[in-house]
Amino acid sequence: MTGWVLMAEAARGPFVESQHFGAAAIAGPEGIREAWGDAGRVILPRSAIKMIQALPLVTSGAADAARLGPEHLALACASHQGAEMHTRRVADWLDALGLSEADLRCGPQMPSDRAAREALIRAKETPTQLHNNCSGKHAGMLTLARHLGAGPEYHLPGHPVQIACREVFEALTGAPSPGYGIDGCALPNFAGRLDGIARAMAWFATAHEREDARSRAAVRLTEAMMAHPELVAGEGRTCTELMRAAPGAIAVKTGAEGVFTAILPEQGLGVALKIADGAARAADCAIAALLVRLGALDAKDPAVRRRMEAAVLNRRGDEVGAIRPATALG
Amino acid sequence: MTGWVLMAEAARGPFVESQHFGAAAIAGPEGIREAWGDAGRVILPRSAIKMIQALPLVTSGAADAARLGPEHLALACASHQGAEMHTRRVADWLDALGLSEADLRCGPQMPSDRAAREALIRAKETPTQLHNNCSGKHAGMLTLARHLGAGPEYHLPGHPVQIACREVFEALTGAPSPGYGIDGCALPNFAGRLDGIARAMAWFATAHEREDARSRAAVRLTEAMMAHPELVAGEGRTCTELMRAAPGAIAVKTGAEGVFTAILPEQGLGVALKIADGAARAADCAIAALLVRLGALDAKDPAVRRRMEAAVLNRRGDEVGAIRPATALG
Repeated sequence: MTGWVLMAEAARGPFVESQHFGAAAIAGPEGIREAWGDAGRVILPRSAIKMIQALPLVTSGAADAARLGPEHLALACASHQGAEMHTRRVADWLDALGLSEADLRCGPQMPSDRAAREALIRAKETPTQLHNNCSGKHAGMLTLARHLGAGPEYHLPGHPVQIACREVFEALTGAPSPGYGIDGCALPNFAGRLDGIARAMAWFATAHEREDARSRAAVRLTEAMMAHPELVAGEGRTCTELMRAAPGAIAVKTGAEGVFTAILPEQGLGVALKIADGAARAADCAIAALLVRLGALDAKDPAVRRRMEAAVLNRRGDEVGAIRPATALG
Repeated sequence: MTGWVLMAEAARGPFVESQHFGAAAIAGPEGIREAWGDAGRVILPRSAIKMIQALPLVTSGAADAARLGPEHLALACASHQGAEMHTRRVADWLDALGLSEADLRCGPQMPSDRAAREALIRAKETPTQLHNNCSGKHAGMLTLARHLGAGPEYHLPGHPVQIACREVFEALTGAPSPGYGIDGCALPNFAGRLDGIARAMAWFATAHEREDARSRAAVRLTEAMMAHPELVAGEGRTCTELMRAAPGAIAVKTGAEGVFTAILPEQGLGVALKIADGAARAADCAIAALLVRLGALDAKDPAVRRRMEAAVLNRRGDEVGAIRPATALG
């Protein structure tokens, strides 16, 4: 249990039924401002650092050479749910590159978007790589690989695209990565300290104060995420709803296995958290609580309340419990 | 974190990505034999004690009056996945009582059985209460309510059926229940100490040594579960596959929010565990490890290996990690 603290609880009737532990860090320009649990813990950030993985796409000039707009950049940072608005845009993007779904290396995934999923089932079709929640990130990496004149196996750890991703991840987290795990979409996911990831998010949050190319790229990516929250995740999703609840003020990103990051440009702050057990319900609850604590979200906003007082229903639709953040986050 | 210990870990590449904490107890006729974490913790056992909730159905004479067989009793103890083999049997059971799906109070649930789920989606139909994983338990309670001449709202805490369930739960766990939460199927789920629930499972495991009516009912329920593992859960499910891996030797039952129980008649032992965060992947892993520790399952059995070394795949189908039990359970 060393290094984890209570982050969220699931109550049922008068009982706390389940508990989620984790760690979190809030960073400012000066460094770590506040932490819960062991913020020095090394984690796999998964999709919560897609905005870092997208930086080389912009700094290399590949994004401009391919005439990518804010919608493309939002999709490059997205874990979308495979709705038609996502898959169509990624398909058009690949088409404009003279590439196709077959050039992706992310693998197929049944969309979490209900309409898209049920349409596939009714048509007795299987999902494609376009439906993979990471297909926008992969389209961005194909764009970069093409621009670099590198080979088609952009997902391999030794490919120039992944070497560039590792280099920028280590630069922004301030330490060499101790290694990687293979992500659900087949890319190397570089490990880093939780507090280092929070500092990287603070670097994004203060990028508008700097003029270097990487900082200007960070501003473009952050603004693209905030301008198109529906492309970063999808209808009903936490990233989309929390960004809509504070338009232009925060960029937030979920990652598998209970990771969440947030960029607060107005305050120059970055947030990173990891739920020990990997539960999304707890990560969603904790990030909402931390953003309310920082004054970036209003606890009375319905989208925020749905995360900080998430109703547990029985199958008759009665409210029989709730998932709430730990008081230490309040 | 007080009272929880490491129960399972999810590894990705060289890193432990996520950790699941929990508590467990193994009881024999003499009492608690072994425990991990705080076994005195009060938990909501959810569906892991359905065999206790089914005892009044048998001891009252209602099961015999309604000519219920082992398949009915297995379904009364089941969290089935709404496959045709489950819903058809529950529908026939209600029909024989002169009742129908409308008399159930469990609420509708989309079946976890893929064929049944996709058939509903293709037919553009919504699930019924027969698909609810608890519909067999509810058919049993309707059978008991009818036998007792009690009213139709059998799901309410003050109904004779629920009073009988509370009485037997308190008798077998050895303490008054501090209260209840409303379960996903709308029934009161009485809280109890984890070690008390393990003792109740040991009481089931030794029931064949006793001649009282409640013990004879326990033998019938345990044998029904072991005779029809496919009705207790369904194809591919942990309860079904682990009972098939040790035919006639163990009865195991999962519960929502990371609960698992096991009855070992040959050894006279009972097991109960709770994963703090409620993760089924960890509860499945931990119960398999404890049953291997007790010699009731063979670690080399494929169904056991799938739980004690559960492969984590990426969306290209490559094995990129594994979920494993904590060494303390070995």
